[in-house]
Amino acid sequence: MEYQRALSSSISRKSLDISGIYPPICTPYNHDESITFDKLEYNMKKWNQIPFKGYVVQGSNAEWCFQSWDERVQVVRETARLAAPGRVIMAGSGCESTRDTIRMCKDMSEAGAHALLVVNPFYFKDNMTSDALVAHFTAVADHSPLPIVMYNVPRNTGVDIPVDAVVKLAQHHNIIGIKDSGGDITRIASIVFATASSDFQVLAGSAGFLLAAYNVGCVGGICALANVLGEETCRLADLAQSNDLKAAMDLQLRLVGPNSCVTKRFGVPGLKTSMEWFGYYGGPPRSPLQSLSDNQVQAIKSEFQKSFFL
Amino acid sequence: MEYQRALSSSISRKSLDISGIYPPICTPYNHDESITFDKLEYNMKKWNQIPFKGYVVQGSNAEWCFQSWDERVQVVRETARLAAPGRVIMAGSGCESTRDTIRMCKDMSEAGAHALLVVNPFYFKDNMTSDALVAHFTAVADHSPLPIVMYNVPRNTGVDIPVDAVVKLAQHHNIIGIKDSGGDITRIASIVFATASSDFQVLAGSAGFLLAAYNVGCVGGICALANVLGEETCRLADLAQSNDLKAAMDLQLRLVGPNSCVTKRFGVPGLKTSMEWFGYYGGPPRSPLQSLSDNQVQAIKSEFQKSFFL
Amino acid sequence: MEYQRALSSSISRKSLDISGIYPPICTPYNHDESITFDKLEYNMKKWNQIPFKGYVVQGSNAEWCFQSWDERVQVVRETARLAAPGRVIMAGSGCESTRDTIRMCKDMSEAGAHALLVVNPFYFKDNMTSDALVAHFTAVADHSPLPIVMYNVPRNTGVDIPVDAVVKLAQHHNIIGIKDSGGDITRIASIVFATASSDFQVLAGSAGFLLAAYNVGCVGGICALANVLGEETCRLADLAQSNDLKAAMDLQLRLVGPNSCVTKRFGVPGLKTSMEWFGYYGGPPRSPLQSLSDNQVQAIKSEFQKSFFL
Amino acid sequence: MEYQRALSSSISRKSLDISGIYPPICTPYNHDESITFDKLEYNMKKWNQIPFKGYVVQGSNAEWCFQSWDERVQVVRETARLAAPGRVIMAGSGCESTRDTIRMCKDMSEAGAHALLVVNPFYFKDNMTSDALVAHFTAVADHSPLPIVMYNVPRNTGVDIPVDAVVKLAQHHNIIGIKDSGGDITRIASIVFATASSDFQVLAGSAGFLLAAYNVGCVGGICALANVLGEETCRLADLAQSNDLKAAMDLQLRLVGPNSCVTKRFGVPGLKTSMEWFGYYGGPPRSPLQSLSDNQVQAIKSEFQKSFFL
Repeated sequence: MEYQRALSSSISRKSLDISGIYPPICTPYNHDESITFDKLEYNMKKWNQIPFKGYVVQGSNAEWCFQSWDERVQVVRETARLAAPGRVIMAGSGCESTRDTIRMCKDMSEAGAHALLVVNPFYFKDNMTSDALVAHFTAVADHSPLPIVMYNVPRNTGVDIPVDAVVKLAQHHNIIGIKDSGGDITRIASIVFATASSDFQVLAGSAGFLLAAYNVGCVGGICALANVLGEETCRLADLAQSNDLKAAMDLQLRLVGPNSCVTKRFGVPGLKTSMEWFGYYGGPPRSPLQSLSDNQVQAIKSEFQKSFFL
Repeated sequence: MEYQRALSSSISRKSLDISGIYPPICTPYNHDESITFDKLEYNMKKWNQIPFKGYVVQGSNAEWCFQSWDERVQVVRETARLAAPGRVIMAGSGCESTRDTIRMCKDMSEAGAHALLVVNPFYFKDNMTSDALVAHFTAVADHSPLPIVMYNVPRNTGVDIPVDAVVKLAQHHNIIGIKDSGGDITRIASIVFATASSDFQVLAGSAGFLLAAYNVGCVGGICALANVLGEETCRLADLAQSNDLKAAMDLQLRLVGPNSCVTKRFGVPGLKTSMEWFGYYGGPPRSPLQSLSDNQVQAIKSEFQKSFFL
Repeated sequence: MEYQRALSSSISRKSLDISGIYPPICTPYNHDESITFDKLEYNMKKWNQIPFKGYVVQGSNAEWCFQSWDERVQVVRETARLAAPGRVIMAGSGCESTRDTIRMCKDMSEAGAHALLVVNPFYFKDNMTSDALVAHFTAVADHSPLPIVMYNVPRNTGVDIPVDAVVKLAQHHNIIGIKDSGGDITRIASIVFATASSDFQVLAGSAGFLLAAYNVGCVGGICALANVLGEETCRLADLAQSNDLKAAMDLQLRLVGPNSCVTKRFGVPGLKTSMEWFGYYGGPPRSPLQSLSDNQVQAIKSEFQKSFFL
Repeated sequence: MEYQRALSSSISRKSLDISGIYPPICTPYNHDESITFDKLEYNMKKWNQIPFKGYVVQGSNAEWCFQSWDERVQVVRETARLAAPGRVIMAGSGCESTRDTIRMCKDMSEAGAHALLVVNPFYFKDNMTSDALVAHFTAVADHSPLPIVMYNVPRNTGVDIPVDAVVKLAQHHNIIGIKDSGGDITRIASIVFATASSDFQVLAGSAGFLLAAYNVGCVGGICALANVLGEETCRLADLAQSNDLKAAMDLQLRLVGPNSCVTKRFGVPGLKTSMEWFGYYGGPPRSPLQSLSDNQVQAIKSEFQKSFFL
């Protein structure tokens, strides 16, 4: 059995190509905060027209932390069903405990995911040493039926997975990449450099530094903004890989303001609000997230206008 | 209906006296990480001999974040059953979403709790403004069958509930107090002063500043260290309210080193390790928490020895 | 020579008693930002009526960082001249380099100081390891003609002198204490406990936690608020050492709001503004510190009123 | 006079082109910590061979904070004298007070500087609001005989100049740019975008994100690493502006490890140590900075070796 596992691991070795752009899709709610799968289908039809590599389901922007176990799985199942053929379904599977994370990985696998995005545990921040994180992700990757993409998002977790832990974990046959949302481009470059021999794929966690990320060797991005400006985010990825530096820079600069509005400035409520302007269903967030005030909505609109997207 | 509610609120107004010392009890696990209720009973028999006001169940030290919904509730039910008569059962009921928190409050009530300790949501830190937190706790308190004690633990959550939010929430008839684990005694004093007219009970969140907390008007403490040194923690509370300043200071100073070991230095693994030395079942934590190395165990032992507890 | 030094060190061993309350006095400026020694004399006459142990000159509230070398020394010289007999003059002597700090210690000694308050270097925060700080303070203490009081003020420096460094340095014959402004009472208690055998004097760095500090073994305080409410601060110190716990707590709670206004909320401009209300000369701060807006002045006034000091 | 000033301002409007690469040169000390101008000359001869745009003198890496007023000025004077013709001398002129900063700007101008790098005041962090910083830099720029480049270095100052303050100040005729060392590429992009109409030049503050910075519109860099690997840093700048994305990325990735060693990991002592390996005089830092241990030296060497620079 060990032999078989070694064999299958060597065959499958990081065979999944995850390069490209993904929206970390929002979960649409009715006004009573229940999930509306109709609206998910509505949004998916539009997203399916955009040249995304795939979808991240149950990332931070999906408000996974507000959903029950079953809801988390069900949204992945529906998204997998609704996705255009060939699209990669990457399912957010992180839980605080190692045991729950493994169990979630299995459930997400059965729900139709192709890869799993696993945020590090973070409640006991002070205990999340490099050693503890290596042990956690190793156990998860050992038992996961699908390849693991680590998820580093210090703004939400208060933890920045140490580079030395990332480099060690990159050698695991079932850990194929990392989504880094921290935005420290020097850190990202050092991860790319240190894992160059490991067939390890690094994805930018935001459109705010997508061009910079490509230019230090990232292979794609999981960008909240792609929920709203999907075409433009994909175009930036293309330009980043072309020789048209000037066009890439211009588009990147235009995207920074709108991107800030749907990430650190206003978060999910900002993202859902701006989705409405581009023909998507945004709808309300779940409490304790609050809908935006008129002033806040106006501030976002102004940023989109400054960049000529509205 | 409004009248009735006002009436019931005026009758029940903060009638529950929560003053005194509580251990936030650890959840005992077998080596396969399953809960062992036998060991819980074993520990409870010892704790029942100590003059605690009651028990906090499913606080941070219970590793609530690693447990399923049902496990959370079941541990409360068992503890309520095992507690000596008259002891207050305060159940950790916080969840990320408002709706789940309300549901958990109801389940904890049915499980036998007398009060509910509710940590603030924290995944979307940047959105957890004063307004959002007031809305969240108000909704929870409106719907909770039991009185609410807010739980501020910035070390774990990365959020410090703003004082102005605490002061507003202190006026809610069903919010009777706060456990503050931050250790900023000036902040605690300002909360006590600003809520003086609200019949609001402030509990220290650690034995590290228990004397200081009493001396600015706190009425008790929920102290990890009380799992291990319960008698001594209760004695410090008594001394803090006596006129024997010298004895209070001496005991407080002796408790600081051991307290640090079971809180910020080593956390739950440090707490469980030291419990073993005092006749309790400690056992392993759940992963990703790691058991301590020999050097770490030795470091804790040394602190207990310096203070003559070992 | 080594023998002589050892001898003198054993004779002088921490002979200076620094227990008691000190205002870290403000430097009065004219409206053109030049120092007005007349106003210093005016303020000193009032402060000399209050039972302070002495004066801290050129602490943070003196805006030492805005003054030339000569100004720093001259203000100490004048204050020493103006102080009531028997008062301890503690002069802020910290500089970024070790060599300048030593030189400043000598100049302050000649200017009439009795003890020297030395803030740690902080520009190269990441290099200010425990070892580097021990080397720095040791060199300063070796060469200083007067006893050293370390000054820990993380809010301004971004550095928290590690407890292990403090404990090591407490053994130096010419380092007699520390002013800790961080407000982490657990940390302060652990310093008191660990230096119990070293004849080391710990002073609270703010009136916000003065009672708590006394109750874990501090021997006094250097409190911005004492510039304004000197009598009340001294009274709190007396009550903290009496058996009248209730009166101590009441006064401490009343002082917290005004104290916050003259420290973290509004800083030196807040302090100078409130001094005017109590018969002192406040005057403007030096730029880049800005005078307060009317709204800010009103906010401070309101806090003093809530506590019945206005 | 107002007319003349307006005129001269419109003529000189941001006429100084500061695009290109600068080493923020180290100040060489003898072993007694006195400045050795011989070694400065020795280093300058080598640096003059490298296609730098100019020199930053008295930046953080010059240990300006450890030098007297006269030393600060004298090192600028000597560097201006030793620099190859046509090189821009940018002199670090920031002080804590507005008045001292203005005076330093004048002295640096007389010493032969062409532009002034002005770090924001930072001791009173909490008071350094956007308004206070705008007032400070405006006053400095109003009175400075030379154009101002703002200097944002949160790692040392604990202050991140708010983007809105930068954007406002970019409109001042005598503020021509900013050096941003924070490394947040999204922030840098947002500054470039928001100041696009202001003829404002943004310089990267480190070689760790130099490529990324160019790709969002920065015009150069002030890079500690250029003290050691000057040719390579200039080559990266060239590649960043060419169409050879692959070569740019490869060089950027190789530079990240060595760069970290001479900046955040080991700081000035790391920089001075590695300078020795490349034929420069490094020498000791001033205390409290400490020379490196053998292990630390080895760690740096290893990083340079991994990138094939040693």
